[in-house]
Amino acid sequence: MDIHALTRELHLKNDSKIVMLVADGLGGLPMTAGGKTELETARTPNLDALAARGVQGGSIPVAPGIAPGSGPGHLGLFGYDPIQYVIGRGALEATGIGFLMQPGDVAARGNFCTLDAAGKISDRRAGRIASEESAPLAVRLRQVKIPGVEVFVEPVKEHRFVVVFRGPGLAGNVKDTDPQVTGAPPLAPHAVDTASAKTAEVAAEFVKQATALLKGEAKANGLTLRGFSGRPALPSYDEVYGLKAAAIAVYPMYKGLASLVGMKIVGQAQTLAEQIDTLEKNWQDFDFFFIHFKYTDSTGEDGNFSAKVKRIEEFDAVIPRVEKLKPTVLIVTGDHSTPSAMRSHSWHPVPTLLVSDVCRPDACQTFGEAECVRGGLGQFKAKYLITLALSNAGRMGKYGA
Amino acid sequence: MDIHALTRELHLKNDSKIVMLVADGLGGLPMTAGGKTELETARTPNLDALAARGVQGGSIPVAPGIAPGSGPGHLGLFGYDPIQYVIGRGALEATGIGFLMQPGDVAARGNFCTLDAAGKISDRRAGRIASEESAPLAVRLRQVKIPGVEVFVEPVKEHRFVVVFRGPGLAGNVKDTDPQVTGAPPLAPHAVDTASAKTAEVAAEFVKQATALLKGEAKANGLTLRGFSGRPALPSYDEVYGLKAAAIAVYPMYKGLASLVGMKIVGQAQTLAEQIDTLEKNWQDFDFFFIHFKYTDSTGEDGNFSAKVKRIEEFDAVIPRVEKLKPTVLIVTGDHSTPSAMRSHSWHPVPTLLVSDVCRPDACQTFGEAECVRGGLGQFKAKYLITLALSNAGRMGKYGA
Repeated sequence: MDIHALTRELHLKNDSKIVMLVADGLGGLPMTAGGKTELETARTPNLDALAARGVQGGSIPVAPGIAPGSGPGHLGLFGYDPIQYVIGRGALEATGIGFLMQPGDVAARGNFCTLDAAGKISDRRAGRIASEESAPLAVRLRQVKIPGVEVFVEPVKEHRFVVVFRGPGLAGNVKDTDPQVTGAPPLAPHAVDTASAKTAEVAAEFVKQATALLKGEAKANGLTLRGFSGRPALPSYDEVYGLKAAAIAVYPMYKGLASLVGMKIVGQAQTLAEQIDTLEKNWQDFDFFFIHFKYTDSTGEDGNFSAKVKRIEEFDAVIPRVEKLKPTVLIVTGDHSTPSAMRSHSWHPVPTLLVSDVCRPDACQTFGEAECVRGGLGQFKAKYLITLALSNAGRMGKYGA
Repeated sequence: MDIHALTRELHLKNDSKIVMLVADGLGGLPMTAGGKTELETARTPNLDALAARGVQGGSIPVAPGIAPGSGPGHLGLFGYDPIQYVIGRGALEATGIGFLMQPGDVAARGNFCTLDAAGKISDRRAGRIASEESAPLAVRLRQVKIPGVEVFVEPVKEHRFVVVFRGPGLAGNVKDTDPQVTGAPPLAPHAVDTASAKTAEVAAEFVKQATALLKGEAKANGLTLRGFSGRPALPSYDEVYGLKAAAIAVYPMYKGLASLVGMKIVGQAQTLAEQIDTLEKNWQDFDFFFIHFKYTDSTGEDGNFSAKVKRIEEFDAVIPRVEKLKPTVLIVTGDHSTPSAMRSHSWHPVPTLLVSDVCRPDACQTFGEAECVRGGLGQFKAKYLITLALSNAGRMGKYGA
């Protein structure tokens, strides 16, 4: 179901404030049979008090059994069906390093590779060259000049960089130039449709000049391009929900994802406490606040159960500051689960909490994976969180008479 | 998912009887933190006994966070996806006053307005003229004669009336004639597609003759037409479910909605007791009975918690009479929630109860909002209630071999 068809028609404006606190990878698993999850182990008096007042449930990021990446995980939370809206690999790579793509831009992921004397690839990742060595090479590629097209090159990590082409008449439907095997030369960029013909030409010219600039390098004397993609056409928060939205994040990826749906990136917070400072300072200027906390995910990815528990307690500790602002609707959720036991994103439903004066409280007294199973929100697709938020904020009219 | 594609193929006939008791706006909210809802407060020994024997859950009328009007609320309960099937405003207004539209009819909502000497609207609602004054004017408009077209005019309330055109070659895609501002004349009816060209001509002729008939009236000397719409094309209960269905309602709106899906309107009951009399009298002649109880909604809309509690108790008291008829499947539900605390329809799931010899009973012992969260039906879209009803009645074959 396209919920934007409904929200476009039904959304109302008022003075309410919605806060969505996203603890990345919040959901977890017990480490031993019969044990508790990270969230259940953590001492979270503030989240538990919210659970007693509010309603909780399990958010399913995409569909049962589907573990999402950060892109689809956040699109779901923002109310954009993550199956319908796809962010291309190049666009996600650019977004992930904080490059704000404009409509019409085309991004691609670049890999440095090693070419032999015959121009064939001998190492597809240039010996996994260190970031310290590769970053200056990426910067060197900014010397490429293509008439009528702006070229942006940004280092990523090790053998990876990102390139963005900006100019009229570009589209993203171009095949990867990586042959996926060694012993073959990089492929020429091939346009899959006529709208992308110019992009293929521009990419070919980029590869030609870049290869000349890399000549003589021992490891990184060649490159391949993958995941060509335009900026995804996502309708804005303002258009589909009538919300003036702010994103308060530390990591570039989440600022980038928020900017793709038209949120304004506010502040330059480096810690959770600074993020709440930023929330306080901008309270009067926005209707909706997305606050992203990274470390519940990264500790889970590290398989560090006790570190994730500590990060959840750190997250819990700032709740009173948020409550003091008296948001009309306060949501606590995650974009997916990252169980320490799995060291990876997972498909498990994410404990999700909603508090407002008109929510229907359930019997839950604490916030956690077992508790949310008996919560009043039941299990629901993440994309419905925004319709629940809008309704609880009095921002949705009745559907039909 | 189009459940009718399944029910059309799989439905079977037998001698079972299905009763769907709809307490309009049944779901509610506590008035104070930690309190009980209207349904939880009411003394409902009969519903609780059903809950102990049956299975319950929370019905989501349209989608999470979407509060429906009566039209989409009932379409969902009847198994018609309320997003897929839309009842136009004019058709709903006609339906709401008990006008039974035929296929090919086009209905519009009429507003009396005040025109100044230059023919411009000075009051879009004719000073909210009293129903006693406006009803005779609506009746006067029945004098309009248009060759080849039957014209029906029915009073509604205050400045509102409804007009229905019946004749060959009419379609409902005509724009509103209300300019939405004062100081401008009413707009000419404008057809949006060629199929609606004749409707626009008929409407223009209606406006011309009607304005002449209203000449000299102090307040209501003009009119505007809005929400032109044909009878919605809803497949019938008989076709999609193989059910001969009866509707037993007091209010015209619910008789009208039931008639749109091919139910037969039986009896002229004015009270719930008389509705059950009607049920008893017609027991042998139908497979499915829709019984509508209005007052749980109207008391909620009034914000009268204790009156809603009393109405729920009144509703509970008739259950033994229904049970005595030994329906194969007995369903108790609502078309949406109407919490007294909100004085409006809401999006909250509706407590829903199903009892049959082959339902899988759950642990619930009472009927209510908190209890249904742990019910065996879980949370489900209202449109699936009909497939559950059919299956529990032995009226659905196996899907696939």
